[in-house]
Amino acid sequence: MSDWRKRPRVGVIGGNSPEERHLDMARKVGALIARAGAILVCGGLGGVMAAAASAARKEGGLTVGILPGSTPDDANPYIDIPIATGMGYSRNALVAMNADVLIAIDGEYGTLTEIAYGKIYGKRVIGLDTWEVKGVIKASSPEEAVALALQKEKNKGALR
Amino acid sequence: MSDWRKRPRVGVIGGNSPEERHLDMARKVGALIARAGAILVCGGLGGVMAAAASAARKEGGLTVGILPGSTPDDANPYIDIPIATGMGYSRNALVAMNADVLIAIDGEYGTLTEIAYGKIYGKRVIGLDTWEVKGVIKASSPEEAVALALQKEKNKGALR
Amino acid sequence: MSDWRKRPRVGVIGGNSPEERHLDMARKVGALIARAGAILVCGGLGGVMAAAASAARKEGGLTVGILPGSTPDDANPYIDIPIATGMGYSRNALVAMNADVLIAIDGEYGTLTEIAYGKIYGKRVIGLDTWEVKGVIKASSPEEAVALALQKEKNKGALR
Amino acid sequence: MSDWRKRPRVGVIGGNSPEERHLDMARKVGALIARAGAILVCGGLGGVMAAAASAARKEGGLTVGILPGSTPDDANPYIDIPIATGMGYSRNALVAMNADVLIAIDGEYGTLTEIAYGKIYGKRVIGLDTWEVKGVIKASSPEEAVALALQKEKNKGALR
Repeated sequence: MSDWRKRPRVGVIGGNSPEERHLDMARKVGALIARAGAILVCGGLGGVMAAAASAARKEGGLTVGILPGSTPDDANPYIDIPIATGMGYSRNALVAMNADVLIAIDGEYGTLTEIAYGKIYGKRVIGLDTWEVKGVIKASSPEEAVALALQKEKNKGALR
Repeated sequence: MSDWRKRPRVGVIGGNSPEERHLDMARKVGALIARAGAILVCGGLGGVMAAAASAARKEGGLTVGILPGSTPDDANPYIDIPIATGMGYSRNALVAMNADVLIAIDGEYGTLTEIAYGKIYGKRVIGLDTWEVKGVIKASSPEEAVALALQKEKNKGALR
Repeated sequence: MSDWRKRPRVGVIGGNSPEERHLDMARKVGALIARAGAILVCGGLGGVMAAAASAARKEGGLTVGILPGSTPDDANPYIDIPIATGMGYSRNALVAMNADVLIAIDGEYGTLTEIAYGKIYGKRVIGLDTWEVKGVIKASSPEEAVALALQKEKNKGALR
Repeated sequence: MSDWRKRPRVGVIGGNSPEERHLDMARKVGALIARAGAILVCGGLGGVMAAAASAARKEGGLTVGILPGSTPDDANPYIDIPIATGMGYSRNALVAMNADVLIAIDGEYGTLTEIAYGKIYGKRVIGLDTWEVKGVIKASSPEEAVALALQKEKNKGALR
C-alpha cells in the first residue's frame, strides 16, 4: 500500500516565463524534493512549474499540479496528478493550502499571491531570488531552500 | 516512471450517511475501479466516499479526495492525495471536473450538484440507486456501473 | 440612507436559451419581485436571467448578477450590481448563497445545480416548469411563484 | 432608473485590526468615494472595511461587501449589498475583480493578496501606508488617494 499521506508536500511557486537561471534553480529544487521522497505541488503550468516538475519526475518523484482551467488536460506533461479548478487565478490559494511548505523562485504577481496565501495558511515560505516579503525565509541556493523546506519539525502539516 | 496521467480517473459520488447497502455498493465499485488500474476521485470525506476509497486502497489503487475545507488533513484515511479547496460545497464542481466519468451511489443534494456538474462538463454519469436525472445512465449493479464507466472509447478525457 | 439590507433577495434561476413562454414567465416574475420591493439576484447573463432583470429594472427594482467570468462587464445590461467571480459554473453555488429564496424557471443542468445548492443552503426553492426535484415547491404561475417566494415568515434570511 | 453601472467602483482593502490612524484614513477614503458618486467595494468585514463602508454610508454612498463566508449575514452593518462566496480567503481575488481601482490602507497578508490580484487583473492600486510592492502608486493622504483613484481616464473599467 502506498504511503503518500506520510510524505511531506513541498509547493514550488514561480512565474510562467522566468530566465534560464531561474529555470535551473527550479530544476534543482524539483530534483531534490523528489530525492527526499517528498511530493511536489505546483500550479501545473509552464516556466518554473514545468521545470521543477520535470526534474522531480526524472528522479521518480510524484507531482501534483493545481490548475486554473476546468480540464486536467491543461497540465504540463510532467504532472502526475493534475487537478482542474476552473477558478482562474483564485486557484493560487489552493496551491498554498496543499503544500506543507512553499519554495518561491522568481515570479510575478501570481507568485506574490501564493507567497501571501502561504503566510495566511501558516505555512513556511522559502524564497529564492523572489519577492522580498516579511516572513519569507531567504535561501541562497536550491540546496539550502530544499533543506530549509524539509526541516520537518518546523512544518505544521508535514509527516502527518 | 509512473503512468498516472494515462490512467482513467473515475469519480465516485454519494452521500455522507448512506445505508449499509449503499456502502456495500461503494466498496464494490471502489475495488473494481482499482483492479482496473483506474484512479478513484471523490470528495474525500465519509460515507460513500470513504467506503469506495477504502476498498480501492485495499486493491492497491490510488485515491484522490477533493475536500471542502482548507486543510488536506480533513481527508478520510483512505485518501492518498487529498486536495484542500477551502470552497465548501462549491468544491463539488471540482469533483466533476477531475473525473473522466462519474458513478453516483445514493446521495442527497450534494450528489445532485455533482451529477449536474458532470453533465455540464460533458462527462458520462452512471447511476446506482441515485437521483433520476435525464442523461444519467442507470446501472443495476456495481459490476455493471464500473463496466459502463470504463468503456474507454466513450470517455472524452480517459486514456489521455 | 438606503435600506437595501432590509429587503428580501429573490434569486431567479433558469437557462440561457429558453422558449418564449419561459421568457415571458421570467419577465412576470422579475416585475413582481421589483414591485414587492425585493432585490433580484441572478447569474447575470442571458435568457431567463436577462428577461427577469430587464423587467425588474423597468419596475424600478435593483438587480444583482453573479457572473462566471472575471470581469463585471460580462453582465447583461439590466444588471445594476454585477459581481464577477472568475469561477465558471462554480459560481452557481454563489447564486444560491445570496438569495433568501429561489424561483427556478425551466433550465438545464446549470439550473439543476442551483436548485440543489438552494436546498443545501436551506433556502426554499419554487419551481415554474422546471426540474422535478424533491423539496422544490411547484408553482402554477409567476404570480403564485412570487407570492410563495415572499411569504416572509418562511424565509430564513429575509427581512434580516 | 438607477445608474449604478455607470458609476466607478473603488475597492478599499486593508486589515481587520488596524491602528486608529488607519481607521481614520479609511473613514476619510470612504467618505470621499461616496461624495464622488462612486461605489465602494470591500471585503465586507471589520477594521478598514467597516470604517470605510460606515463613512461611505453616512455620505449616502452605496457599499458592496464580498464576504469569505457562505451567508450574507456576516457582513458588517454598513454594507448595502453583501455577497457571500463561501470561498474563505480565496474571495480576495473577487474583491480585486470587482473594483475598477483599489486603495490599500495598511493591511496584512490578506491585503497583500488583494494588491497582487489587483495587478494581475490590470487594475491600478493606490497605497496608503501599506505594503511596498512595485506597481503600487503611493499616496500621502486619503484625499490624494481618492483623487488618484478617480482619475477616470486611467481606469480601464470605470465609467463603463
